[in-house]
Amino acid sequence: MTLSEEAARAYELDRRHVFHSWSAQATLTPTVLTAAQGCYVWDGEGNRLLDFSSMMVNTNIGHQHPKVVAAIQEQAATLCTVAPSFVNAARSEAARLISERTPGDLDMIFFTNGGADAVEHAVRMARLHTGRYKVLSRYRSYHGGTETAVNLTGDPRRWPNDHGNTGTVHFFGPFLYRSEFHATDEAQETERALAHLERTIEMEGPATIAAIILEPVPGTAGIMVPTREYLRGVRALCDKHGIVFIADEVMAGFGRTGKWFAIDNFDVVPDLMTFAKGVNSGYVPLGGVAINAAIAATFAHRPYPGGLTYSGHPLATAAAVATINVMAQERIVENAAEIGAKVIGPGLRELAQRHRSIGEVRGLGVFWAVELVRDRATREPLAPYGGTSPAMTEVVAACRAGGILPFVNFNRLHVVPPCVITEAEAKEGLAILDQALTVADAHTV
Amino acid sequence: MTLSEEAARAYELDRRHVFHSWSAQATLTPTVLTAAQGCYVWDGEGNRLLDFSSMMVNTNIGHQHPKVVAAIQEQAATLCTVAPSFVNAARSEAARLISERTPGDLDMIFFTNGGADAVEHAVRMARLHTGRYKVLSRYRSYHGGTETAVNLTGDPRRWPNDHGNTGTVHFFGPFLYRSEFHATDEAQETERALAHLERTIEMEGPATIAAIILEPVPGTAGIMVPTREYLRGVRALCDKHGIVFIADEVMAGFGRTGKWFAIDNFDVVPDLMTFAKGVNSGYVPLGGVAINAAIAATFAHRPYPGGLTYSGHPLATAAAVATINVMAQERIVENAAEIGAKVIGPGLRELAQRHRSIGEVRGLGVFWAVELVRDRATREPLAPYGGTSPAMTEVVAACRAGGILPFVNFNRLHVVPPCVITEAEAKEGLAILDQALTVADAHTV
Ligand SMILES: Cc1ncc(COP(=O)(O)O)c(C=O)c1O
Ligand SMILES: Cc1ncc(COP(=O)(O)O)c(C=O)c1O
Repeated sequence: MTLSEEAARAYELDRRHVFHSWSAQATLTPTVLTAAQGCYVWDGEGNRLLDFSSMMVNTNIGHQHPKVVAAIQEQAATLCTVAPSFVNAARSEAARLISERTPGDLDMIFFTNGGADAVEHAVRMARLHTGRYKVLSRYRSYHGGTETAVNLTGDPRRWPNDHGNTGTVHFFGPFLYRSEFHATDEAQETERALAHLERTIEMEGPATIAAIILEPVPGTAGIMVPTREYLRGVRALCDKHGIVFIADEVMAGFGRTGKWFAIDNFDVVPDLMTFAKGVNSGYVPLGGVAINAAIAATFAHRPYPGGLTYSGHPLATAAAVATINVMAQERIVENAAEIGAKVIGPGLRELAQRHRSIGEVRGLGVFWAVELVRDRATREPLAPYGGTSPAMTEVVAACRAGGILPFVNFNRLHVVPPCVITEAEAKEGLAILDQALTVADAHTV
Repeated sequence: MTLSEEAARAYELDRRHVFHSWSAQATLTPTVLTAAQGCYVWDGEGNRLLDFSSMMVNTNIGHQHPKVVAAIQEQAATLCTVAPSFVNAARSEAARLISERTPGDLDMIFFTNGGADAVEHAVRMARLHTGRYKVLSRYRSYHGGTETAVNLTGDPRRWPNDHGNTGTVHFFGPFLYRSEFHATDEAQETERALAHLERTIEMEGPATIAAIILEPVPGTAGIMVPTREYLRGVRALCDKHGIVFIADEVMAGFGRTGKWFAIDNFDVVPDLMTFAKGVNSGYVPLGGVAINAAIAATFAHRPYPGGLTYSGHPLATAAAVATINVMAQERIVENAAEIGAKVIGPGLRELAQRHRSIGEVRGLGVFWAVELVRDRATREPLAPYGGTSPAMTEVVAACRAGGILPFVNFNRLHVVPPCVITEAEAKEGLAILDQALTVADAHTV
């Protein structure tokens, strides 16, 4: 099949005028997307693909939910934009709905346009609240593309942006499958990872550390679900040393893990929480920071020195209001938990029994990673850290040919469909994955 | 009058849950905005206000333009969001329309969510293109709220964020009314400002400087229109030393100055151009960087190490397509030029003859500053640099009471209405300003 006329024109203009994220521009042959509905997208050749990536892990309610589309259309007809200094009903209601769901006393919401600026502002709040500068984050993490956020990121995309001057320090988190701590079980991994963090804090100087930022469940870096004890241990270390605990819920929040927020799986309350993506499924650009009472109080009489033109944008917040209401009414968070526990988790584990290219399967909710290896014994990845390989390229091509859009990072396939995915859709996708994994198996030793 | 029930609820929730930009939260009593149309907005008490601020100088086509609202509604019904790695028709067409209007060979567009992240990415591109780190910017400038952008900013909002480590250096630009160079006319100011910039480059080390970022006409900092010779001189210095010239068109672009871009007034071609606001009048959050061929070529085979989830968002770019088409069809840029030359400029100059609180009037298009002074002889401002004063507070209150929303910065009132403003509306606003200025006059010596 070939591209429709409209798709061909879009493609041609794209190659001439659109500069793409994270890419060498001349090497791209991007797919045209022309339509989407629920868990499916259609490419420029008319092929339907099951979206196992939720785009960038953001369309938690699926594509084109009619109630959210209607809410955007209605708000567009009423009032598209107001400046941040005013009060607007859509913004107020979104702040109420979010703060109703955030843990503890994180009841003030600063709205941004996306995840990276949410991280930038959270870090600023922590620095000014503590009067300290340094921020600790994990290796194997992603926190965004602006300068501070990308330097907090623990992934090779930081490297070309790292000039050693952003006050960021990285440490290792718990990841039993590739343990930094020579641990042999989860309890040991947790204990040693906490000891390592404590030692790092001690070596860096507790009084120099403003914040620790963590994805409660790291997303792009591999969906390594920690134990409850680990996150509680981090909370305790922060309390002990007066360090702000920032939970980065940009990817894991709003239903992805089968709870409203990933941190809810661990009964821990952070001091600041960043969000974006799932807050309105990315229908309109929106992000933000949920702020606890103590940090909000720091800026009660002292101006907060940060802002942006579109903070609390009516169209974006109206989409959040509709999204959150739809998620509650349609039990979308519960669906994510159920599909994960009953279909995706068991299904992936079953695939792991039959495909020797699968080194490990891990996740929860609709947030799963499949670690592909050349050799189960050595755990040698199917693509090197920070890179790709012909084998991975073939696997991805097989997924696409079979009819799914996977999310791929180095040697991993992530199964991260919309939270609304049905059992039938999940099974359809897993069957396609089953086929694609035979391609991976051919590259094992 | 009192707030409507809906407005009262929005207000109450705002005070409980919304954290506002650049503010001490406990000191705020923000105005509720419930509706807007064209150049007017309505507050929660039902008062109609003429918007002389274009919100944050972004609603260049006015509020709720029916064609742009319809385009947003249509795109919402079709496809709200796709990931940046795909091709999408709305994004492609927006990139085409923008690159058709950008000067020179700035024909590749990297889309962001707003102005600050556009600046972050432009700076990164310049750094990687040159292999240098330092970036020069003006005192009296604004470039955004994220860490790099706020440190480039030459205004007191930088101070609490300045840790001396972002590779930013500030210099003085031309501003005859408060000349740093003891100049007595524009030609001398231009010549001395260029000599100062050249000396600064020499002292900093040309081979250490990646970029110079400038608002072609500084906005928030005071709408100081430079001479053509100044911007040409900056271009020549950049060429001489291999420095990237970044024009920050976030506020001044898309019609504000009576041209598509402010830089067009000076016949200068920058290497990178940042934009946001007017690109779609802020109806949906959108910003971006226009990139010239040489810098695009740097990232042809080497990956650009930056990105964001909502880069080239369909809803945002569809709004840009509609906005740009409407601006062209309805001669909105031309209107901005005409209203500035025939109504606002002459009107403000006439006010300056009758109000001794006016120290200077300057601007072009629908981009005007009124510099308020306590004393015309000494030019002592009506509020100190970086602060406010009871006098300014009274003037602003008089504007609001009279029925206009002004844009205020320190001792200045900016007259920055939508580019669609009619002669009658502009005159109505100037008459209200006339009244408010009698309040200012009472504070002069
Ligand atoms: C955990 C996390 N933080 C921050 C970000 C950055 O968000 P954005 O791409 O909206 O800037 C992402 C994006 O993937 C993310 O996954
Ligand atoms: C010249 C200039 N650059 C950058 C920005 C930052 O844009 P944003 O507020 O969308 O981040 C602004 C905002 O006023 C601006 O005027």
